[in-house]
Amino acid sequence: MQPDTPNNNHNPKIRRLEITDISKGFIELLRQLTVCGSVSETQFQDRFQELVTEGENHVICVIEDENTERIIATGSVFIEKKFIRNCGKVGHIEDVVVDVSARGMNLGKKVIDFLTAHAESVGCYKVILDCSSENKAFYEKCGFNQKEIQMVKYFT
Amino acid sequence: MQPDTPNNNHNPKIRRLEITDISKGFIELLRQLTVCGSVSETQFQDRFQELVTEGENHVICVIEDENTERIIATGSVFIEKKFIRNCGKVGHIEDVVVDVSARGMNLGKKVIDFLTAHAESVGCYKVILDCSSENKAFYEKCGFNQKEIQMVKYFT
Repeated sequence: MQPDTPNNNHNPKIRRLEITDISKGFIELLRQLTVCGSVSETQFQDRFQELVTEGENHVICVIEDENTERIIATGSVFIEKKFIRNCGKVGHIEDVVVDVSARGMNLGKKVIDFLTAHAESVGCYKVILDCSSENKAFYEKCGFNQKEIQMVKYFT
Repeated sequence: MQPDTPNNNHNPKIRRLEITDISKGFIELLRQLTVCGSVSETQFQDRFQELVTEGENHVICVIEDENTERIIATGSVFIEKKFIRNCGKVGHIEDVVVDVSARGMNLGKKVIDFLTAHAESVGCYKVILDCSSENKAFYEKCGFNQKEIQMVKYFT
């Protein structure tokens, strides 16, 4: 591995999603997670602005490769306000993905730690996420424990 | 069973949570689900108003026993806005509980159907929830299938 390859970028910065990140491969990265469809720049910007209005209650983080200026990891957390637990709050982590070329660099843990710290900072009593059984060990390394099962109903 | 007992109320109405429902045992009902702490009327009203500002993106439904004027079932759904799936939306069902005295009357299914229909009506491509393995069969009856596992990290 050469010193200037992306994989040698040992301490890449993590930051919040910016409106210009669509040109840095943000949607292409999400396609490694699941179906995205053809998200236009306008659609991206509209959804971005909608999420901005949620402030600290919906945060998306990204890691950008400083050499290539491409987004190589992302994840989101949104805050649910409840009545239970003294009108408590819960962080829900969603849509975590690391670019195939950047795996094995602990970027996934960096993303989870960022989102978890955010949930704690806004007063959540817990943070939860759903994952496949294959990813259980990874999340255990991030300090999570299995609790329940996820049920789903698709409309389309 | 007498004709006028609550359990003989075969078609109880389901509606959205109202700010006066704290006096109808809403918090006491949630205590059958988990720890609630001492939620004061002011705390309840403040959280209620916060959730009202989320409009169709956070809906709590209740079933009231018309004889006793007590809340005997509830559940909530909030809508997550994503970039994946053509900037799709997902409904998250939370905090479903039926009063012990009113179980076996299909009120749980009524709550789930209401919340699921809401998620579909606002354009979600799926609705999800986390539950214990013991409740899996109930949610299968409601049209859900098991998909993933839930991981949790507690802060307190």
